[in-house]
Amino acid sequence: MTGIAIMGAGRMAKVHAASIAEAGARVAAIFDPVEAASRALAEATGGKVAASPTDAMNDTEVEAIMIATSSDTHVELLYEAVKTGKPVLCEKPLASSYAASRDFIATVGEAAARKVFLGFNRRFDRGHASVREGVYAGRIGRLEQLTITSRDPFPPPLEYIPRSGGLFRDMMIHDFDMARSIVGQDMVSVTAHGSSIVDPEIGRLGDVDTASVTMLAEDGAIVTILNSRRCAFGFDQRIEAFGATGMLMSDNPRQSGFRSFSKEAPGTDAPILEFFMERYGPSYTAEIRLFLDCARIGLDMPVNALDGLMAAYLAEAATASLKTGKTIHLTGPDQEFENV
Amino acid sequence: MTGIAIMGAGRMAKVHAASIAEAGARVAAIFDPVEAASRALAEATGGKVAASPTDAMNDTEVEAIMIATSSDTHVELLYEAVKTGKPVLCEKPLASSYAASRDFIATVGEAAARKVFLGFNRRFDRGHASVREGVYAGRIGRLEQLTITSRDPFPPPLEYIPRSGGLFRDMMIHDFDMARSIVGQDMVSVTAHGSSIVDPEIGRLGDVDTASVTMLAEDGAIVTILNSRRCAFGFDQRIEAFGATGMLMSDNPRQSGFRSFSKEAPGTDAPILEFFMERYGPSYTAEIRLFLDCARIGLDMPVNALDGLMAAYLAEAATASLKTGKTIHLTGPDQEFENV
Amino acid sequence: MTGIAIMGAGRMAKVHAASIAEAGARVAAIFDPVEAASRALAEATGGKVAASPTDAMNDTEVEAIMIATSSDTHVELLYEAVKTGKPVLCEKPLASSYAASRDFIATVGEAAARKVFLGFNRRFDRGHASVREGVYAGRIGRLEQLTITSRDPFPPPLEYIPRSGGLFRDMMIHDFDMARSIVGQDMVSVTAHGSSIVDPEIGRLGDVDTASVTMLAEDGAIVTILNSRRCAFGFDQRIEAFGATGMLMSDNPRQSGFRSFSKEAPGTDAPILEFFMERYGPSYTAEIRLFLDCARIGLDMPVNALDGLMAAYLAEAATASLKTGKTIHLTGPDQEFENV
Amino acid sequence: MTGIAIMGAGRMAKVHAASIAEAGARVAAIFDPVEAASRALAEATGGKVAASPTDAMNDTEVEAIMIATSSDTHVELLYEAVKTGKPVLCEKPLASSYAASRDFIATVGEAAARKVFLGFNRRFDRGHASVREGVYAGRIGRLEQLTITSRDPFPPPLEYIPRSGGLFRDMMIHDFDMARSIVGQDMVSVTAHGSSIVDPEIGRLGDVDTASVTMLAEDGAIVTILNSRRCAFGFDQRIEAFGATGMLMSDNPRQSGFRSFSKEAPGTDAPILEFFMERYGPSYTAEIRLFLDCARIGLDMPVNALDGLMAAYLAEAATASLKTGKTIHLTGPDQEFENV
Repeated sequence: MTGIAIMGAGRMAKVHAASIAEAGARVAAIFDPVEAASRALAEATGGKVAASPTDAMNDTEVEAIMIATSSDTHVELLYEAVKTGKPVLCEKPLASSYAASRDFIATVGEAAARKVFLGFNRRFDRGHASVREGVYAGRIGRLEQLTITSRDPFPPPLEYIPRSGGLFRDMMIHDFDMARSIVGQDMVSVTAHGSSIVDPEIGRLGDVDTASVTMLAEDGAIVTILNSRRCAFGFDQRIEAFGATGMLMSDNPRQSGFRSFSKEAPGTDAPILEFFMERYGPSYTAEIRLFLDCARIGLDMPVNALDGLMAAYLAEAATASLKTGKTIHLTGPDQEFENV
Repeated sequence: MTGIAIMGAGRMAKVHAASIAEAGARVAAIFDPVEAASRALAEATGGKVAASPTDAMNDTEVEAIMIATSSDTHVELLYEAVKTGKPVLCEKPLASSYAASRDFIATVGEAAARKVFLGFNRRFDRGHASVREGVYAGRIGRLEQLTITSRDPFPPPLEYIPRSGGLFRDMMIHDFDMARSIVGQDMVSVTAHGSSIVDPEIGRLGDVDTASVTMLAEDGAIVTILNSRRCAFGFDQRIEAFGATGMLMSDNPRQSGFRSFSKEAPGTDAPILEFFMERYGPSYTAEIRLFLDCARIGLDMPVNALDGLMAAYLAEAATASLKTGKTIHLTGPDQEFENV
Repeated sequence: MTGIAIMGAGRMAKVHAASIAEAGARVAAIFDPVEAASRALAEATGGKVAASPTDAMNDTEVEAIMIATSSDTHVELLYEAVKTGKPVLCEKPLASSYAASRDFIATVGEAAARKVFLGFNRRFDRGHASVREGVYAGRIGRLEQLTITSRDPFPPPLEYIPRSGGLFRDMMIHDFDMARSIVGQDMVSVTAHGSSIVDPEIGRLGDVDTASVTMLAEDGAIVTILNSRRCAFGFDQRIEAFGATGMLMSDNPRQSGFRSFSKEAPGTDAPILEFFMERYGPSYTAEIRLFLDCARIGLDMPVNALDGLMAAYLAEAATASLKTGKTIHLTGPDQEFENV
Repeated sequence: MTGIAIMGAGRMAKVHAASIAEAGARVAAIFDPVEAASRALAEATGGKVAASPTDAMNDTEVEAIMIATSSDTHVELLYEAVKTGKPVLCEKPLASSYAASRDFIATVGEAAARKVFLGFNRRFDRGHASVREGVYAGRIGRLEQLTITSRDPFPPPLEYIPRSGGLFRDMMIHDFDMARSIVGQDMVSVTAHGSSIVDPEIGRLGDVDTASVTMLAEDGAIVTILNSRRCAFGFDQRIEAFGATGMLMSDNPRQSGFRSFSKEAPGTDAPILEFFMERYGPSYTAEIRLFLDCARIGLDMPVNALDGLMAAYLAEAATASLKTGKTIHLTGPDQEFENV
């Protein structure tokens, strides 16, 4: 069983620890600045508590590294992890600022960046993955329109808004990555619209809670992303890929096959899954399995730090588009945006 | 435009008159004992009021005859109609008693009986017909289980129950015909169960309001029919044909593609169609078109008086099974049943 | 039965003539420059052939006027019709150019324009109407995002493209009207994107075949419209209205409740409706009924020439946005657009 | 963490061991006659290998006992387990013969029998449980018709058929228990029909592969159970509970929310779950949680050995009905059946 060092012992680290076990690997070492958290996770997993990230990463039983700390510490730990030469899986985002993401890629180089698995776990959702696989298998011919709907059940606490980086960097980043992974081409333009219609306080804090982004791909395919910070009926996560010969859809899965029929509601489905752990929980295990498989063979990671950079780049462009009211024509990740 | 004589000017006659127009034919003559009804229908359709059924049927502009009077007059008019040699479409049932149905077939002969179109219009429902066509086309391989669910939105008036002939003859007769048309074989046994759980008054009047019938076909396929006199959410009319390589289903169509999502009801469909005119209305036009086509070419009718006899025979057997608590082994329409 | 004069005896006129009969009115007079067409429709409906539009409109048996000629003749006939003081229903569009639409409103005045029913018949589709009614009834609280998908089964003949006015004026105009009718507010901006990805020839002719439009409403609600000139699986016509407390959807209705299950396709629905006559056919009858009701009482028409102007205005703005690559900020129907 | 002794180390034992961990308990001791199997499971779980069932059950760290051995050893181990006074969960069936089941209840007494949890795990399927809870909560008023469809993806090996006890005892027993749990009343009659239409070899071995059973409940509610040993599109497990004010349904859940649309298949769902581990896997964890909760408080088990007896009784009656071709009127579990 592959031994893994986990950086972090918080909520996401626990999720990953469970997935590691399900994926047939084991937690070998743990580091979290809150020692009690490290100890609790160590007890639950059988891993050892390390005195520092360096100790954890360099432990001889450790064959792979997972970074599941708070976002602002990712990039620093990544520099450290990359030095060990061991395979690394880092939770999204790559870094807490776009500049820092760019610097990381520039510093370590593209080859090393491709060895860092970046945890866009929604790619591994069974329904979403079926859409992507279907598109790649030619089931809808040429892709013409891609529509991604992504709505959280409720907004984050207001105090989180100012440090979130804004909706595009914090929430829509998943959808930018999803769009890239399904379209399989570079985007040439981004146009963003947004409102703070869910909660005007969010507007006062300089962010939007409802947004629509349109992107054009190189070949003219049109991508539309719809986001909302609130959805009354659950975690609304859907994709529609429309092409020359058909359409593939990833609809919201239901909690069960239960349906009820009455005069007032003559055919009501069971609720959709509530939030990301219900919906994307199984994706974490699939993600770690793929990470371990690629690590074993020494492949580039199929979703890696470069993907993290490109998703962040689109988030940056969308933020710029919203601020300026203009379509942003994309020239590549070196592009500079004003006032974002 | 084919001229048609309609016997009857009541509700079903009006439905048929509209379907006749849609099917590209015309009402040429009308007879109804209530002359005001005849006149009203004549005015609406441009047909002439006839002094008697004989006059109507023998009118030189009349090329086909439709019997849409009350059930107890069907067979008498059928004898008359058959004599004219013109094509005849008769609303179900063939006659008000099973004995009278048998006598009719015996008297006119099977060849003539095959020229009488019997109005089991549900066969022409688009969803139901797709199931039958799929079975015949081999889409599910050998048919193994057929399940027909048929529930009315509300029970008939209690005063109707005593003269209805009972649920099997009055309501399930449609499902017996449907079963025969999909299975395409003779049935070898009928077992009926029933309760008066919707309204105990119906039980006191000697009938049931909830019933389940199991029939075995010659090759061992099992048919299950479920009936209820009441359904809170509308007119529940469904078929499932299960076979070696798959299943075909005719589900309840919806009033529209409307769906609503809320916290309490996270995915509710539009209502199903309310009752037989909403659900089976379009079937009448399809039925008349087929009747006119077969008449034009001189074919035997694809659903004819013999089918009417066989459905009535199954209804008779089910009634006998319920009364005796035994499975009835079927020997053919000459079979005699005790105490039914 | 209200007598109606129909201008035109072509395909749409025939559709309307049938709807007039179903709505309980009658065709009293017909004018079409192709006299044979007039005569054929006269024979089918019992109306008389008129020598000129003026004769038809002023016939004493005529109580209401319907304009169902080719688009380029609408406005001229409208001027004539308005003069009679009789209620008028005009097929969309109001006029063949935006300028002509504006002139018409300016000439006849807003009060008269409100008496002209404009045939945006999709408003009367049962599913779409349920969405609008649900929004107005407060079933989703404040409307936050409205998404309209509208895809034709196949593109028009290439020779039609140059005289179509472009996708926004020719096809998306229905969706602009639908958006206005559901949102119930003015739009403040329009941003259009488009590609000719279905057929590059369409691009060479200066048009797009795939488009996405984003509009902001006064209160910040975001409208997204997706169009395609081709859809492999039929006439894809859907609406999603998302709000504070839920979502209402008008999904594609199916040809029947048929479903099939096999190893390869474990749950396949019946096809969706093929094109506009299958999908929106019943809407025409509903439209004419509403027109006649409003005419009888003397009400302003609930969808009238002003709505026609506003939808055309949005189409004009979208065309300008596509050409300039910029978001168009809307100032009202007097706004001038360059180079469109 | 409650320590559990597992009898058996085969496939079902492994499933249970995983569920025990997920339910927050632990495997303390294991006995399987195949020592290598015991050792493997001990290694995977951290439990100890016991020398005999008695040793395992009486281990001081063992607080509860789970019997997951082959069916023919259940009852013997149950006698042993009951003697310890510790809570017991026994996989279905209670015993390999109906007589042995009856003897067990008679020997240990009803009070002790109620403390033995019997593993009818389908009761804990989320969709099925929602139907039962809805019925009990009065959501459909009085229950009038209950229809249970249960089809395996493929038949068992032919060599299994002779020792299976026949379809009613081996497969439909789950549905008998489900029916009892939803109806909440005694059944008064059982009528069975069956065919060997899937594989005539099964018929030659004296069994059926396709069956339909009708049961009447005390108050007249009608239960219909449909079984097949083969289903081309997966593990078809559905329930419909129809009542005075509505219907509750447990439909087959899908592998994901994926749907595809093409000209040929204009709306195809993702496959249903393949077999019992995919469909009912999560039910095992729910089952063990409930078992541990009841054990902790000292409650009677909500599904216990008496339920096992009653389900076996209905299976016995169905077998007798099929053999005799007659409806069996139920008098209670002491009833003797001929030739079954």
